[in-house]
Amino acid sequence: MKNIVLFLRYDGTNYHGWQSQKNGTTVQEIVSEAIRRLTGEPPLPELHGCGRTDAGVHALHYVANFHSETIIPVDRLPYALKPFLPEDIACYDACEAPEDFHARFSCLEKKYVYKLYSSRIPDPFLKNRAYFTPMALDLEAMQDGASRIVGKHDFACFRAANFTAKGSVRTVYTCSVRKTDDDCIEISVSADGFLYNMVRIISGTLYYIGTGKLTPEDIDSMLASGDRLEAGVTLPPHGLYLESARYPEGSFIRA
Amino acid sequence: MKNIVLFLRYDGTNYHGWQSQKNGTTVQEIVSEAIRRLTGEPPLPELHGCGRTDAGVHALHYVANFHSETIIPVDRLPYALKPFLPEDIACYDACEAPEDFHARFSCLEKKYVYKLYSSRIPDPFLKNRAYFTPMALDLEAMQDGASRIVGKHDFACFRAANFTAKGSVRTVYTCSVRKTDDDCIEISVSADGFLYNMVRIISGTLYYIGTGKLTPEDIDSMLASGDRLEAGVTLPPHGLYLESARYPEGSFIRA
Repeated sequence: MKNIVLFLRYDGTNYHGWQSQKNGTTVQEIVSEAIRRLTGEPPLPELHGCGRTDAGVHALHYVANFHSETIIPVDRLPYALKPFLPEDIACYDACEAPEDFHARFSCLEKKYVYKLYSSRIPDPFLKNRAYFTPMALDLEAMQDGASRIVGKHDFACFRAANFTAKGSVRTVYTCSVRKTDDDCIEISVSADGFLYNMVRIISGTLYYIGTGKLTPEDIDSMLASGDRLEAGVTLPPHGLYLESARYPEGSFIRA
Repeated sequence: MKNIVLFLRYDGTNYHGWQSQKNGTTVQEIVSEAIRRLTGEPPLPELHGCGRTDAGVHALHYVANFHSETIIPVDRLPYALKPFLPEDIACYDACEAPEDFHARFSCLEKKYVYKLYSSRIPDPFLKNRAYFTPMALDLEAMQDGASRIVGKHDFACFRAANFTAKGSVRTVYTCSVRKTDDDCIEISVSADGFLYNMVRIISGTLYYIGTGKLTPEDIDSMLASGDRLEAGVTLPPHGLYLESARYPEGSFIRA
């Protein structure tokens, strides 16, 4: 039995996120079905993803794995899967992994980016791809705020209010804000794990700092209080991208 | 009567090009109708565009003008038009122009870019936005070919075969090929005027040079012969963008 890793990239606009659920089509379902049709293996392989993405969230480098007896050479899988995948989901690479590799549990670090487009008028080419705001944003203040998020903290203030189970201590490795070539402001956050809606709330909080509604110092206060109400708005999903996932060395075996 | 200039940006995927025609919705129709609804002026203003774009072709900075008695301040038009325009067409700027300004006839130079994505697997985020090819492309050979297109030539070889009326001498000011940040290869062509399908045929010819099917030297020969059959394929419209249009100084009057 091979443990096969797929590297995916998807435009999440038309999907109800990664994880299979009752309502709406998910990326996991579509890719699982493509694998089943390609390999002809019953039952459906269990396709493990590196993380849940919400409806409308995109992925640039998503990692998933499944076990299979397929005789198709693993490095040919991207080409073999292509006819079974829609144009908004691509498998651009594949390899084998050690038996115990698990896309979610083996993951050491994930990185998300949130794209904001601040301008007078929305850009047609950024529809569903960046959050539009007519407000001017203070980049330096946002960068100051972002730097205060880095580190091991209780991130309860950046968690959707109705999700209170389990601990909320995480380590944020990097949090930065930059202007991109396509005139967007990009917020990047990498961490060992994320609470529900954490990146969208961090982005909304930095957005409020950018508009002057909050100050960079407020970050320290909300981290200390753990109060969701002190943080900013939860920005919509269409500006969010899973950028990458990092694994221990030796996780990916290539022929 | 004011002569009003609109600066537009549109994703051409869902339109049958700029120019109104019998079959299919055009950008010109949509913008004309938005102006009519906003100003309440009968009859429809004549909306002059800087050039025809084919079905599926995009525009980053399109220039159009019309005459109107509207009392809406011209600098407010982008905001005022927004509710009447679909999300894939934006008016991002507006100003006045001298009485005799005409978006098409006053235009001194237009610039188009054609985006190619050369990779193993198509990128979901470039669907309808770049031409995908699994072929590796020789960038240097393409650049060599591009440099031979610059200048005043008879461009009959780069004109759709069924369009033979009028002269085919044009001046290409710049023609270049570069790798972009999003891993595309971008062909840029600026000229005083373009023949029908000229940029798509130039792009197809440089694409053939990139794959080795043609050589840079073949450009000299096809320019000399004027034979469309010596040039490369007409690449599809969805990789093409009208980048900008240049006008004489003093064309744009701002309050």
